[in-house]
Amino acid sequence: MAGAILAIGNELVEGRILNRTSFWAARQLLFRGYEIKEINTIPDEPALIEHYVKDFLNRYDFLIVSGGLGPTSDDLTNAAVARALDRQIIRFKEMEKRIREREKAYGLPENPLRLKMADLPEGAELLTDKHPMAGYFLKLKEKLLFCLPGVPEEFEFLLKEKVIPLLEKFLPLKGIFLFKLFKLFGLNEAEVNLALEGLERQWKNVSIGYYPCTPEIHVSLRIKGSQKEEAEKLLDKVSQKIKELFGPYIFGENEDLLEGVIGKLLLERKETLALAESCTGGLVASRITRIPGSSAYFERGVVSYSNEAKIEILGVPEEDIKTFGAVSEPVAKAMAEGVKKLAKTTYGIGITGIAGPTGGTKDKPVGTVWIGFSCKDGTVAQCFLFPGNRHTVQDYAASTALDWLRRYLRYGTLIPGYQFTCKH
Amino acid sequence: MAGAILAIGNELVEGRILNRTSFWAARQLLFRGYEIKEINTIPDEPALIEHYVKDFLNRYDFLIVSGGLGPTSDDLTNAAVARALDRQIIRFKEMEKRIREREKAYGLPENPLRLKMADLPEGAELLTDKHPMAGYFLKLKEKLLFCLPGVPEEFEFLLKEKVIPLLEKFLPLKGIFLFKLFKLFGLNEAEVNLALEGLERQWKNVSIGYYPCTPEIHVSLRIKGSQKEEAEKLLDKVSQKIKELFGPYIFGENEDLLEGVIGKLLLERKETLALAESCTGGLVASRITRIPGSSAYFERGVVSYSNEAKIEILGVPEEDIKTFGAVSEPVAKAMAEGVKKLAKTTYGIGITGIAGPTGGTKDKPVGTVWIGFSCKDGTVAQCFLFPGNRHTVQDYAASTALDWLRRYLRYGTLIPGYQFTCKH
Repeated sequence: MAGAILAIGNELVEGRILNRTSFWAARQLLFRGYEIKEINTIPDEPALIEHYVKDFLNRYDFLIVSGGLGPTSDDLTNAAVARALDRQIIRFKEMEKRIREREKAYGLPENPLRLKMADLPEGAELLTDKHPMAGYFLKLKEKLLFCLPGVPEEFEFLLKEKVIPLLEKFLPLKGIFLFKLFKLFGLNEAEVNLALEGLERQWKNVSIGYYPCTPEIHVSLRIKGSQKEEAEKLLDKVSQKIKELFGPYIFGENEDLLEGVIGKLLLERKETLALAESCTGGLVASRITRIPGSSAYFERGVVSYSNEAKIEILGVPEEDIKTFGAVSEPVAKAMAEGVKKLAKTTYGIGITGIAGPTGGTKDKPVGTVWIGFSCKDGTVAQCFLFPGNRHTVQDYAASTALDWLRRYLRYGTLIPGYQFTCKH
Repeated sequence: MAGAILAIGNELVEGRILNRTSFWAARQLLFRGYEIKEINTIPDEPALIEHYVKDFLNRYDFLIVSGGLGPTSDDLTNAAVARALDRQIIRFKEMEKRIREREKAYGLPENPLRLKMADLPEGAELLTDKHPMAGYFLKLKEKLLFCLPGVPEEFEFLLKEKVIPLLEKFLPLKGIFLFKLFKLFGLNEAEVNLALEGLERQWKNVSIGYYPCTPEIHVSLRIKGSQKEEAEKLLDKVSQKIKELFGPYIFGENEDLLEGVIGKLLLERKETLALAESCTGGLVASRITRIPGSSAYFERGVVSYSNEAKIEILGVPEEDIKTFGAVSEPVAKAMAEGVKKLAKTTYGIGITGIAGPTGGTKDKPVGTVWIGFSCKDGTVAQCFLFPGNRHTVQDYAASTALDWLRRYLRYGTLIPGYQFTCKH
């Protein structure tokens, strides 16, 4: 069962807006066994829309079109879809009513342009009864066509709540298709490659891939089968093998985030965390506090960008900064310990480094980062030399700090061995 | 002069990796007058690759293919491109030499699989003399085909340094094409729509669009002409009109970021900033410190997630938290003032709110955010009610704080009027 996504919008194809939703949709569909074969992004041009609606419906089982359903002159999807299917455009009375009601509710004057949203291809079935820009679908013999609004919130809601259930109803999967993602941190691509070599050939209908999502590496596992129980057994078996291969390097599965995983672990243990960040500039705190409910375990963070902040708030000895520099083992330790003491938390993490592009020296080149970790077992620090530009160094440092905490929470490892560790 | 981008990779079409580079490339090309008409993302399937190389080269002036140039069994681009063009695959000796040299330099055993990267379509011209995965291009009568590695750093380097100069050399623009983006903060879509209505019809060859990049709105201006000077004059004229329309709501142009703009303004004035963040959890600090050189003006940040942190570090009166709550005018003011005093900076910003999904009350629903701003003119605070989920509320709050500072730095506005301002 394979489909395509056609995303319509000048703002997309001009690179002004990243087409996130199409890729998000592809992942959601894959988790449910529906494969997307093409994600094409095109401008608001009726001829192109018509061409691809025909072409994709000819080659695939289903097509999801997004964008161009609104009331402005740029919104050309409905007419182009109707032409592609050789159908009339019909005024949908139900939709017209909703538009008028909405105008009233918002105190807007009746605008005839808005009624464009009620002019849909004959045979269209509305996806919701709520919003004027509702989206619709069309059953075409053995194929399905969905037209969704491009607005991310609406697109995502309709995909999860309407499109996937409709696919499962009208285009049920022939055979079983299972998909699982393992998320790894702390190995490089070559190491993952080596470990996986020849693995998938041990089984039939198993396909294993991997891909760097810097600074993480994701390993994908795909099982095809005809019987559910058998396929699930195989999934468990291969998953077990992958877990044995990568053990503590696996921090999560599927949609897990590193900051979500440590959040869960801290919650379970009723423990708390405080951060002292220098070169990551609040990135770790920001990632942690993106997770709902993080206030239960995240007490505070200090972005001690200046030396004064390190000394005044965190109690880093001025002498240490003078003698060893701000990017050094004693300073990383003092930051971790200082913030833990100040916040009275179970854990304290301190990060100090040179993210670049300037500030590097021969001894401490750009990418040099000291991370300090303080817990009931004491305070330790480790030096890293991360690759890449400023953002990459910051991302590596933030993920390393988070993963270090995860390793300690899961395995009690006080100093995990990582790639990019450097001897100092 | 129109082109297409064909991005190849299972990891892309499965939604495991966001295809950022294609959209980035489209923007870079647009700024230089080269329009991208389609960005298609497909799996590593030779038949599909071949189909689209033929189809796009038939319909467009140039094609940029990315991905699938590596040594693994998944990398199928070279052979498919050769078939599409009806050319032989040739062993490129120069490339073979580079691969062998690299193996030696890294102490790797000679791996025959790696030589796959030296097997390229006849007539290919290598884009660099550095890396084995170099990428190449082919001159095809009046059209150009580029094959680039999918690795973002390599793709971006080659696009800027090689692809664009080659396009300008072999496919010079007929006529003039100018593009400019205005980035706005603080207006809603309807207001922008209303202001722009009918504007582009005042001129020939001018096209004006707008699009929400929540929480920003971007207005695009496109000029087509035959004479450079004339087109540039027109660009200036229409730009002037747009600036008059939106005035202080425009924070930047083209690739400008809000945090970069305030960075420049602070640097110019040799002034400094400190932050006290609660509901944004370090997001503002993180955005500011993504900018190289931010240590010159960003002194420190405090992520005072707990009440204790607000009281202990920032000196917020415990009484105020008890009486008015942590999300209140006196607390926002005390946070801004407290961090400014502590850090001895020119400016202090305090942000405290309810990002959700829990924690809202009838009086202070999810989305309620107080922002405090402290400068030489005194300390003020403003209440906002931002829409959307946790991340959207955090993003709105962070951008509002940054834009507030920009308004003060550029216009001396102590309390700008914003949408989402709420009376408390």
